[in-house]
Amino acid sequence: MSDRVLLDYGSGGRASQRLVSELFIKSFDNEELSRLNDAAVLDISGPVAMSTDSYTVDPIFFPGGDIGSLAVHGTVNDVSMLGATPRYMTCGFIIEEGLPMADLERIVQSMARAAREAGVLVVAGDTKVVPKGAADKIFINTTGIGEVIVTPTPSADRAGPGDAVLVSGTMGDHGLTILSRRQGISFEAPVESDSAALNHLIGKLVRAIPQIHVLRDPTRGGLATTLNEIAVSSGTGIVVREADLPIRDAVRAGCSFLGLDPLYLANEGKFLCILPQDLAPQALEIMRADPLGRDACRIGEVVDEHARKVVMQTPLGGKRLLGMLEGEQLPRIC
Amino acid sequence: MSDRVLLDYGSGGRASQRLVSELFIKSFDNEELSRLNDAAVLDISGPVAMSTDSYTVDPIFFPGGDIGSLAVHGTVNDVSMLGATPRYMTCGFIIEEGLPMADLERIVQSMARAAREAGVLVVAGDTKVVPKGAADKIFINTTGIGEVIVTPTPSADRAGPGDAVLVSGTMGDHGLTILSRRQGISFEAPVESDSAALNHLIGKLVRAIPQIHVLRDPTRGGLATTLNEIAVSSGTGIVVREADLPIRDAVRAGCSFLGLDPLYLANEGKFLCILPQDLAPQALEIMRADPLGRDACRIGEVVDEHARKVVMQTPLGGKRLLGMLEGEQLPRIC
Repeated sequence: MSDRVLLDYGSGGRASQRLVSELFIKSFDNEELSRLNDAAVLDISGPVAMSTDSYTVDPIFFPGGDIGSLAVHGTVNDVSMLGATPRYMTCGFIIEEGLPMADLERIVQSMARAAREAGVLVVAGDTKVVPKGAADKIFINTTGIGEVIVTPTPSADRAGPGDAVLVSGTMGDHGLTILSRRQGISFEAPVESDSAALNHLIGKLVRAIPQIHVLRDPTRGGLATTLNEIAVSSGTGIVVREADLPIRDAVRAGCSFLGLDPLYLANEGKFLCILPQDLAPQALEIMRADPLGRDACRIGEVVDEHARKVVMQTPLGGKRLLGMLEGEQLPRIC
Repeated sequence: MSDRVLLDYGSGGRASQRLVSELFIKSFDNEELSRLNDAAVLDISGPVAMSTDSYTVDPIFFPGGDIGSLAVHGTVNDVSMLGATPRYMTCGFIIEEGLPMADLERIVQSMARAAREAGVLVVAGDTKVVPKGAADKIFINTTGIGEVIVTPTPSADRAGPGDAVLVSGTMGDHGLTILSRRQGISFEAPVESDSAALNHLIGKLVRAIPQIHVLRDPTRGGLATTLNEIAVSSGTGIVVREADLPIRDAVRAGCSFLGLDPLYLANEGKFLCILPQDLAPQALEIMRADPLGRDACRIGEVVDEHARKVVMQTPLGGKRLLGMLEGEQLPRIC
C-alpha cells in the first residue's frame, strides 16, 4: 500500500478491498467482520440500546488518547449510560486524501485496542476517501448496540427530589487537554484526556444497584450543561456544592489561565450518577474501588425547589444559577 | 435560528438543543428520539442485522434524490441484503459551518420522508459542526439494524454452481447522474438516480423464496465489482451475458460520451439475486410485479469453471474477463 491514503482506497474496488483486508480485518479481527457482507448478523437479545456519535476532534492525537480510542470510548459510554452492556459497534471513516497511512494505522490499532478492552466487537465498517481539502484529516462515526440489563433503564427524566448527585471523578480534563494542545500551550503540571470506556464500572454499578435513576456522561457542554438537561428533562431542581466538585489543580490553573470554566468542558471518561440518597454510600464504594471511579464523590442533590434549574452553592454560602452552555466554547472537542 | 448553520449548533449546549428539538425531533417524530437520552432503547429480537455507511456525495442535491434520502436508502438496503427487515436507524451529521439552514432542513425532511416510506425509525442522532473549510458542506453517517427473517441469511459465499444470477433493474443510473451533474453536463434524454429503499421488495422475495443464496446491492464499484466479490467469496465462477444486461439507452449514450463503463457505476436502488435456477422464474415474477423490480432479468449463471472470476459473453459469442474496479472512477459518488 502507498504511504498516503489515496482516493482509490475509498472506491469500493480492489484498492478498497486491500485496505479492508490488510488493515481493518486484521486489526478488528473477528469472524463477523471477516465475512465481508454488506451487514453483520449479530447474536443479541432485546431490549437493545443503540447510540451513535461522529468524532471530528482536532488534533487527532493528544495526551491520553487519539480520535480512534475516543470514538470507541464515547460510543461505549453512551450505550452504557442506558444501563446496557455494549456488545457490537460499527465504524464509518471519512478520510481526507493524503492522510499518512501510518496515522490511519495508528488510529485503527488504537480503536481495536480500545474495543478489545471494552469487550466490544467491531462488526461492520465503511470507508470513504474525499479529495484533499474536502475534509480535515479524518472523521470517524461509531454506532454501538448493547443489551439492556436493568429495567426501567436509567433516564434523565427519572431524577427525583431527594436523590443524590454523584460524579465519578474530576471534571474538565479532556476539554482542557484538547484546547491547550490545539493552541500549543503546555502547562507546568501536565494534563491529559480522561478518555476511557466506562462500561465495566457501569456494569458493576447497575447490577448492584438497579434502582439508579440517571446515568449520564458529561461530554460536550460539560457537567453544567448535562445537569441542566437532567433538570429540564425531569422537571426538578438540582443543587450542587462548588466546594465538592472534583477538579484537578492543573485543570483549575489551566482553565483560569485560559479564561475557561471547567464545568463547561467536555469529559470522556466520567459519568454522573443520580439515585435515591440512601443508596449513595454503596454506589460511591463501588465507584471508588475501580480505578476509573477513584475520585468519585457526592456533589449535590435533586430538590423540589427552582424546577428545571441548576443552582450552585458557593463556599461562602452564596447561590448562583449554573446555566447551560451558551454559544460554542470549543469546536471539534470530540 | 440563523439562516446558516453556526458552530454553536454543534456545541452540545443551548443552540444544539434548539436545532435538535426544532428540526430533528420534529422531522423524525418518534417517541424514542424525543426522550433525548444518550442512547435509544429498542424493542427488537435477535438475530439482528447491522450495517453502517457514511455518505459524502457531491453534489448534495441531484436528480432523483439528495444526500439525505440516499443515506436512508443505502443503509436500509444494506440491512435488507442480509434477508432482514430494517427497523431502526441512527444518523450522524458532520456539517460545515455556514451551510444554508434551508439546505439542512431540506435534507433532514428528505431523510424523514425516506425513513417513513421504508418503515424505519430514526432513534438516535448526533450533530457536529466543523469550522468552514474543515468539511465540504455535509456528510451523513447512517447505521441501521433490522430483524433477520431467514436463516441461513443470504451471503456472498453461498453462491453455488447451477445458480441463476438476476438483477432487479437497469445499471449505472445513479453513477452517471452524479457525474454528469458534477461536471455540469446535461444529456438529451434526462438521467436520474435510482436511489430507493428496497426493503419492501426484498421482504416479499425472501418470505416467498427463503432459499435465495445471495442478495447484494451493486453500489460503489458497480455490478462488475460486486460480481467479482461474490465469485471470490464463494470460490465459484460467474458468467454473464452482455446482451442481457439491462442498461437504459440514455445511460449507455452518456457513458459512451464520457468514456465510462456502466458496469462499474454505482447503483442505489438495485440488487443482485443469486438462487437455484429452478426458483428464478418465481423470483423474477415477484420482482417484476413491484415498480422497483419492473426491469428485473436474468443475466447469467454461477458455474464450476474459472473459479473466482467473472466472465462476460459478448453478443458475438466471444468471452472476456470482467475485472474488479481498479483505481477510482468517481470519488464521492455516494
